Amino acid sequence: MALPTYSTMKHHLLPAATYSRLVPRATYHDTATIDEPTIKPQNRSRSAVNIPASLSNLLHLNLNHHTNPTGTHAGSSNNAMLDVQNFNRQTPTYSPTEDISSMYSEIHGAADWSRLLSPLHPWLRREILKYGEFAQATYDAFDSNPFSQYGGSCMYGRHRLFEKLGLLRHGYDVTKYLYAMSHVDLPRWLERSLHAEAWSRDSNWMGYVAVSGDEESRRIGCRDIVVSWRGTVVPAEWLEDIQGKLESIESNDQSDIRVEHGFRSIYTSKAETTRYNKLSASEQVMGEIKRLVKFYQEKGEKVSITITGHSLGGALALLNAYEAASALPSVPVRVISFGAPRVGNEAFADRLKELGVKVLRMVVKQDVVPKMPGILFNEGMKMVEKVTGTLDWVYTHVGVELGLNVKTSPYLKNCIDFAGFHNLEIYLHLVDGYVSSKSGFRCEAKRDVALINKASGMLREEIGIPPCWHQPANRGLVCNPYGRWTMPNRELEDIPSPYREGYEQLLN
Amino acid sequence: MALPTYSTMKHHLLPAATYSRLVPRATYHDTATIDEPTIKPQNRSRSAVNIPASLSNLLHLNLNHHTNPTGTHAGSSNNAMLDVQNFNRQTPTYSPTEDISSMYSEIHGAADWSRLLSPLHPWLRREILKYGEFAQATYDAFDSNPFSQYGGSCMYGRHRLFEKLGLLRHGYDVTKYLYAMSHVDLPRWLERSLHAEAWSRDSNWMGYVAVSGDEESRRIGCRDIVVSWRGTVVPAEWLEDIQGKLESIESNDQSDIRVEHGFRSIYTSKAETTRYNKLSASEQVMGEIKRLVKFYQEKGEKVSITITGHSLGGALALLNAYEAASALPSVPVRVISFGAPRVGNEAFADRLKELGVKVLRMVVKQDVVPKMPGILFNEGMKMVEKVTGTLDWVYTHVGVELGLNVKTSPYLKNCIDFAGFHNLEIYLHLVDGYVSSKSGFRCEAKRDVALINKASGMLREEIGIPPCWHQPANRGLVCNPYGRWTMPNRELEDIPSPYREGYEQLLN
Repeated sequence: MALPTYSTMKHHLLPAATYSRLVPRATYHDTATIDEPTIKPQNRSRSAVNIPASLSNLLHLNLNHHTNPTGTHAGSSNNAMLDVQNFNRQTPTYSPTEDISSMYSEIHGAADWSRLLSPLHPWLRREILKYGEFAQATYDAFDSNPFSQYGGSCMYGRHRLFEKLGLLRHGYDVTKYLYAMSHVDLPRWLERSLHAEAWSRDSNWMGYVAVSGDEESRRIGCRDIVVSWRGTVVPAEWLEDIQGKLESIESNDQSDIRVEHGFRSIYTSKAETTRYNKLSASEQVMGEIKRLVKFYQEKGEKVSITITGHSLGGALALLNAYEAASALPSVPVRVISFGAPRVGNEAFADRLKELGVKVLRMVVKQDVVPKMPGILFNEGMKMVEKVTGTLDWVYTHVGVELGLNVKTSPYLKNCIDFAGFHNLEIYLHLVDGYVSSKSGFRCEAKRDVALINKASGMLREEIGIPPCWHQPANRGLVCNPYGRWTMPNRELEDIPSPYREGYEQLLN
Repeated sequence: MALPTYSTMKHHLLPAATYSRLVPRATYHDTATIDEPTIKPQNRSRSAVNIPASLSNLLHLNLNHHTNPTGTHAGSSNNAMLDVQNFNRQTPTYSPTEDISSMYSEIHGAADWSRLLSPLHPWLRREILKYGEFAQATYDAFDSNPFSQYGGSCMYGRHRLFEKLGLLRHGYDVTKYLYAMSHVDLPRWLERSLHAEAWSRDSNWMGYVAVSGDEESRRIGCRDIVVSWRGTVVPAEWLEDIQGKLESIESNDQSDIRVEHGFRSIYTSKAETTRYNKLSASEQVMGEIKRLVKFYQEKGEKVSITITGHSLGGALALLNAYEAASALPSVPVRVISFGAPRVGNEAFADRLKELGVKVLRMVVKQDVVPKMPGILFNEGMKMVEKVTGTLDWVYTHVGVELGLNVKTSPYLKNCIDFAGFHNLEIYLHLVDGYVSSKSGFRCEAKRDVALINKASGMLREEIGIPPCWHQPANRGLVCNPYGRWTMPNRELEDIPSPYREGYEQLLN
């Protein structure tokens, strides 16, 4: 029978005017162009077969005379063909990565990326996408099936996470999984398994720690320790629920530093009675970071820490960065976040600056989450501030913002979709096409546009990719030898184990 | 990210009282019991591991003292264990099928199944399920993906349809696919491909003709020609739209016989300009039936025609039966329908009776579709009838009804779900458990209960099967050699071809 999502969908042909935006052009040419594959004639003709007629007509229609709304110029028929190639996805999805060690400190944000953001330097773009894919991995590997015995855990053991997700090419190894719980009742945060013998009743898989291998370390100029934090599924609504409950960052803290209590609860909660949170997420991640830093510094290596996350994950990244920079003053700490909400007050922001934490925030203009918490809340407080002259109770953003805009992408629907605007794959798509706030979507963009619809319906229908396509066959059910459909047991390798994960620190 | 269906679901623990219905008992024992597998101790213990605790507790709790609402008695611990086995799906899903040729004419309905329905004879039950699975095949193999170039067609070529769906065991061969269109604008009927090069813009795959092989023919006592008609996805709403538009069954027909014009339109529409409906569904199916009857009668074989369908498919089955019985008076014609709406008036019903068409209608008490069209309409007309004394304009059901009731099944949720009540898999599940209108669900039922949730959420959550689980991996997208996600081309074998199908009759 038809899947509900399909039956509720309509195919609307767009007016010719809007089509004119479908041929992206860029005035800026980065090194990615050099490795553009030469398009063989037979490729051309073969690939021409499968593209939607409306689109190909358009492409040939608009070749020599049009300017798209972003102000970049219509290009040659070559560019048009290149675009057809993209729609047909007959090109590689990424360019070879250059040795960027010469620009190590700049790319790490030493100068707050001042010379690299406008236009966006291709080397930095690739690093942002790398960390964005580490963040996306926490969604792609998360078992959100409440009928699974392991619902709320990672579907794969940490030794094959990157292999399963096709991320081995980044040259990192996962060294630890992170689990979190919360003592504060946070609506729609925890994914619970309905299974009678659920792997855990209290905790969720919340991310992982990974470290760059020798080759990648050489390429980027340091041993890079990455922490990737998972976000939530319904952050916008969720963030409304936690509007403006600021509290001191540490119970015994005498400073003015305040952070959102829900984020802090997830980062710091623990309970002896649980299997995966006898240690808090904070204790788990700090234990592992310290272990790795010690290990590599003793080998005389240059070590850096990069903490990434999307949405709630971006908020946890900031709390984590604050703690890491405080505990390890000798190690540069950087946060690469996507669609992250505000976390703390002015004092929190100032302290992070003092600690030398570098923060690069990707923010989609149409995404409401980065405006949370405190859209309304802050307004009220600004009044108070005028009187009291203090900002203790107002949320503030930290670091450098890279502003993205869904309107620049010719691949995206012209629609209002708040979940879509916040989707991490949209962020990665827009970073991939970003050149500068002035110019349009670059046609050398490499990422597969089909990924946009992985968990959204933002991709234009002409491109022919179903919405929300990222799903297991038969919701993970398989037919057993008796001819009956059952939820299969996981391979031992992929079954979460408190002994492999939660207790490691206690054992060290 | 969490699949929407999951995130919107809640797990409600049922009060102990309702649990008491979870151990099905039957006073009636059919031959199916003889092939019940002996449960080995180690099986018991192993399988006990995976069942929801609530359920196993219940089973042990209620072993020796409870009566379930259906009035059948609580059985021995053996029965309980057997039930645990079922929940763990460690038993075969079907019993060996006996030689039923001795009862050929009775099972074919010669005596309107008078002696076989109460209690339901196991041989007849198995035949009903066989034809029900032929009807279910039209849903399971239907490509309802609008992004597929072949949306609205069958996913598999006719030579491997049964192989792909695991129906080879029935011993039938598909000889022809049927395609339909409609000149009447029927909302939400046609599934259209959004693809620029769609296989067809006007037609949908509407079913198939199959014939029993030598072995199966021997077993059932005749060469059985089966026609299986596909239903619609949203029949209830759809049927409201076509409320009571009766018209003469043939344009030149002078009789009082009237049938619903939407059904008739789908069955009879054709257009020279189309690729798959230069012949109407009626012409396609009658041509094939006549060809097969001629072929096997010339070999001196006993031939029968069984027409099956669910929902709209059941309606088309009646129109088809009317035409087949009129054209082939020498061949017994039988209709096995599931949740079918009314099709025509009293005169239509009388004529079918005269023609000797035998109709067995499976009707779930809670399903509204069999009450359509004309829930309201008929009431109005009954008044008219009192005046005019004619029933020309009132819909009437045909044949023998087998009444099913969702409340008898201990595996189903206690909820209001009109789509669920109409779901064909629910029908098959209830037939599998049916003994008589008086007794409860038989514990010898063999079908995998997981199938209930294939396209519904009717199965109790304790059993741990996700709702609507029947879905392809990644909505059919696959990662191509370039690392990009694309809708793959079909194997040639599975691509619909007007030359293979639509034109056959013209060529003969």
